[in-house]
Amino acid sequence: MNRVCVVGCGAIGSLYAAHLARVAEVWAFVRRAEHAKALNEHGLTVSGRHEFQVSLKATNRAEDVPPCDLAIVATKATQVEESIAPVGARFDQGAVLSAQNGLGSEEIIAQHTRGQVIRGTTFMSGTRHSDTHVQYELDTATWLGPFEERQTPYAVVKEAADLIVAGGLKAEPLHDARPAQWSKLIFNASVNGVSALTGLPHSPHFADESEFTGLGHLLHALIEEGKKVAHAAGVNLHDDPWEMNKIGAMTNHPPSMLYDVRRQLPTEVDFLSGAIAREAERAGVSAPLHTAVYRLIKGKEAGWSFQDENRAVSH
Amino acid sequence: MNRVCVVGCGAIGSLYAAHLARVAEVWAFVRRAEHAKALNEHGLTVSGRHEFQVSLKATNRAEDVPPCDLAIVATKATQVEESIAPVGARFDQGAVLSAQNGLGSEEIIAQHTRGQVIRGTTFMSGTRHSDTHVQYELDTATWLGPFEERQTPYAVVKEAADLIVAGGLKAEPLHDARPAQWSKLIFNASVNGVSALTGLPHSPHFADESEFTGLGHLLHALIEEGKKVAHAAGVNLHDDPWEMNKIGAMTNHPPSMLYDVRRQLPTEVDFLSGAIAREAERAGVSAPLHTAVYRLIKGKEAGWSFQDENRAVSH
Repeated sequence: MNRVCVVGCGAIGSLYAAHLARVAEVWAFVRRAEHAKALNEHGLTVSGRHEFQVSLKATNRAEDVPPCDLAIVATKATQVEESIAPVGARFDQGAVLSAQNGLGSEEIIAQHTRGQVIRGTTFMSGTRHSDTHVQYELDTATWLGPFEERQTPYAVVKEAADLIVAGGLKAEPLHDARPAQWSKLIFNASVNGVSALTGLPHSPHFADESEFTGLGHLLHALIEEGKKVAHAAGVNLHDDPWEMNKIGAMTNHPPSMLYDVRRQLPTEVDFLSGAIAREAERAGVSAPLHTAVYRLIKGKEAGWSFQDENRAVSH
Repeated sequence: MNRVCVVGCGAIGSLYAAHLARVAEVWAFVRRAEHAKALNEHGLTVSGRHEFQVSLKATNRAEDVPPCDLAIVATKATQVEESIAPVGARFDQGAVLSAQNGLGSEEIIAQHTRGQVIRGTTFMSGTRHSDTHVQYELDTATWLGPFEERQTPYAVVKEAADLIVAGGLKAEPLHDARPAQWSKLIFNASVNGVSALTGLPHSPHFADESEFTGLGHLLHALIEEGKKVAHAAGVNLHDDPWEMNKIGAMTNHPPSMLYDVRRQLPTEVDFLSGAIAREAERAGVSAPLHTAVYRLIKGKEAGWSFQDENRAVSH
């Protein structure tokens, strides 16, 4: 794998692009022309756990992207469709790694490329300070596995993981990535949903079970419900999402969906709570809490373009 | 019943005070000195369905309130305790009508007066334009019944209802007010909870069951769960809350809890979703959806005084 395209350069995409540019030819495919221009002129600067600067190629024009051996789709789940559609054919002879939150991105990617599709879940994190500067924070791994519907060979998965590791990031090739993906799905759906609806960052409230009203009870119930759906879908979890929640609840970190609702941007809820609701229906079990959270957040999104005509209140 | 005290003069309290002042001596007990002064100087003006002006007595000092035959507590449920505590003894020889949303206000009132306690539920509505001007909108009835723990005689209930009717409002005395109170409780808890969490007014979304994500499905589920709790508590509903929801969903009206969350004021959730959660526990049935809404709104209230230190977002 000599030529790599990173699709979308937010915090995660920038971390992949910068590290891989040290060991491969990297193209960054981004939405904004100014973003591409800045990357071409200044390259990418990484600070935090790693400190280096690297040059790479960038474009916002699909026709500029050459055929690549590996693509990493690192957009939000809501932007996978629009970002992969114009360039998917350039990866027909290669492999495409999905690095989104939640479930459902692999299926979208597979509709737009004949390449091998790799199911990915990343636990690393970073903060994007500008178009050309990203801070590397949590240096946890990306877990990669075959996308079952494409019968992606493990050798391809391993080659992609090896390249990421060669670039200086952590990655783990797996014969089945679903246990890791579902662990993060259940964690993310529960924490992001509660955060988006309450306005609270991932704070100690999320693990508080001292009172009847404690949100820890709700998180526990959401996670148990998610585990029940995973079990019905035939997935054995890799990690316990409740333990992940307890650790995260000490950070006071605003999850991505809270960031989205604060700015009234479309959330990833279709790929998180919505994915659990859909998988529950498919497996013939019920998921009333995740379904309720799903509907509430879709209602919240609908509210951004809907205002009551009379803001006065009566009883 | 010749002398009446109305405790709290928001929209509902102002409507009671103005109408009753036409047939009885009315004292308005309010929180703010300027409010009392304005009422003493200008009386109350009613517009909308009724049009009249009336004078009455008002005070914000508990020691000014004389013994009364009837008191109507018309504050928000969250303010019952603080408003009845200093004046409850003035009604020891009379009756006290609770006109709050939800369940639990009668119990609080009974702790502060030896008078008869009347369980009340009002369906009228109005808009408060100023301290001395209220617009009368929905002219639906107040339903009154005994507070069971005090064994309030029906004759007292009837006398209070007759006085309200004599003043020009609608009222219906009942041998058991719980079926009406619970109908409104389930309606209110479901609609207010979803509105507070989504930010939507009571809009057509609330009855929309055309898509999987439609909030109508969630309202239906909340209402069914509420009906199950009512049944377990031995209450047969007076009205179907789903029918009430369908009608309300055509109004685009912001429910009181949406008003509260927009202004970051304490909500009535302890008396609505919280009451259903408590009654479910007492009756030994589960109410996962109302309990989830309860915890989410308590979490939202907690968020008003809790901010993440770092508003930047990482992935």
